[in-house]
Amino acid sequence: MPDARVVVTTDLLLEGRHFRRDWSSGYEVGRKAAAQNLSDVAAMGARPTALFLGLGLPADTDVAWVEDLADGMRDECHIVGASVAGGDIAQCDLVVLGVTALGDLGGRAAITRAGARPGDVVAVTGRLGWAAAGLALLEAGHRESSEPDLARAMDEVIGAHRRPAPPYSCGPEAAALGATAMLDVSDGLIQDIGHIAAASGVGVEIDPAAFEVPGPVGVAGRFLGVDPLDWMLTGGDDHALAAVFPVGIGLPAHWTVIGEVIEGAGVQVDGRVYDRSGWNHFQGKL
Amino acid sequence: MPDARVVVTTDLLLEGRHFRRDWSSGYEVGRKAAAQNLSDVAAMGARPTALFLGLGLPADTDVAWVEDLADGMRDECHIVGASVAGGDIAQCDLVVLGVTALGDLGGRAAITRAGARPGDVVAVTGRLGWAAAGLALLEAGHRESSEPDLARAMDEVIGAHRRPAPPYSCGPEAAALGATAMLDVSDGLIQDIGHIAAASGVGVEIDPAAFEVPGPVGVAGRFLGVDPLDWMLTGGDDHALAAVFPVGIGLPAHWTVIGEVIEGAGVQVDGRVYDRSGWNHFQGKL
Repeated sequence: MPDARVVVTTDLLLEGRHFRRDWSSGYEVGRKAAAQNLSDVAAMGARPTALFLGLGLPADTDVAWVEDLADGMRDECHIVGASVAGGDIAQCDLVVLGVTALGDLGGRAAITRAGARPGDVVAVTGRLGWAAAGLALLEAGHRESSEPDLARAMDEVIGAHRRPAPPYSCGPEAAALGATAMLDVSDGLIQDIGHIAAASGVGVEIDPAAFEVPGPVGVAGRFLGVDPLDWMLTGGDDHALAAVFPVGIGLPAHWTVIGEVIEGAGVQVDGRVYDRSGWNHFQGKL
Repeated sequence: MPDARVVVTTDLLLEGRHFRRDWSSGYEVGRKAAAQNLSDVAAMGARPTALFLGLGLPADTDVAWVEDLADGMRDECHIVGASVAGGDIAQCDLVVLGVTALGDLGGRAAITRAGARPGDVVAVTGRLGWAAAGLALLEAGHRESSEPDLARAMDEVIGAHRRPAPPYSCGPEAAALGATAMLDVSDGLIQDIGHIAAASGVGVEIDPAAFEVPGPVGVAGRFLGVDPLDWMLTGGDDHALAAVFPVGIGLPAHWTVIGEVIEGAGVQVDGRVYDRSGWNHFQGKL
């Protein structure tokens, strides 16, 4: 810990709730488990350095599945220059992963959820709606199609559900640019920006016209008869970064300004409270 | 992290495997979950600074149980001057605790399992056999007695099972005294010292005459018809510290020398391989 500080994040991933072994391989679960924790470190403006795993496994788990899991965690860590540095193992009726990640702030202050001020702009980088579209297809039992464009879109969004690709380096970048608040979108954009609003004591106004629907997400939406903006505003698991910046900062092109911080409380879309929300761990979809 | 390094440990605690809600209160589970991780930090020679909890809970969990759990973790942390600094929560069919603890080495090197050398002495401090005796009573359905001595012994060993009292400060003490290897006894003394032997590439000879059976453990043994030395050599969960020191170091009286490091491999008791072992997470008692 070069500057004598450490950022820490921890997450539980539970079989049947956060992943299914019939929908994702061990390798994909490993990639995803690492990604969501490394992303939390990045969202504090830090560079991830080490990952730790508490692993619960059924007694009849195939060893190859566990080796695939380890390979997936290693490969995801490799993207950011971190490593799996330790852990624990126990027998359990379901697969349980308790993942902890540490990170290095590189001399900067940690970015929390609590620094947004009225007048700041809200921006996102990374994917929105992809994993939610993929999950919706899997839940509806659609994994493939004989129609090439649809098949390609299915591959892309189902792949995004199985293996998120968080924009890790944009976390320290946002910190260096002067972000006043940040988090990674894991429970849905509106709900997660609501966490920033609550922690900062402000409101946020989101402009739905700022969102460009990605091609594969639009194709999946048309196929299932779902407004893809719903997925983009309420879907989790892509681990995009949402950050708040003082007005007037020149943001790199991969950041999209989607709204602004206002006096008040809560998150509004186009001037109204959006009537769907993200994932609530004790109620399912609201 | 004053000296720019951090020690980390992580553990999974699973309902039905590591604790039972009908045998331990939420407060006791919190104390125990914190204790076993803080003890792991101490066993590296470090002072615990912060604890993180990934908490899986059934949807119908009583909120009072969760508040008791939090109180227990807070109080155990308070003993060592640490605090619960963060966490995650998710719904799960069983109670799952993924606990991570960080610690400060105070400028010393971390003590690992790999430094024992032939000629070193092996010493322990803290309780041995207490929690195993308490667990054996609970498993046999004995929680109370009308016989005062037996009732008192039952209270003590069942209390030790529910709420371990690791000798936290003895970890940094052993490091300062020059320990060459150390761990906390969580799976059974012989098995855990076997980990030191394997990591250090040495053998260990344990002298059974060095152990004094604690009063309540002896009482419980007579009541159940069990040799209490079995509990002391193979029982887990008291989180005693076992450390290896160069010969000739004057150890404080709360350390008991129980054996020595020899050329070779494995752990012998009184010159023979002990025929019972500690806890194997995938096979139960051997």
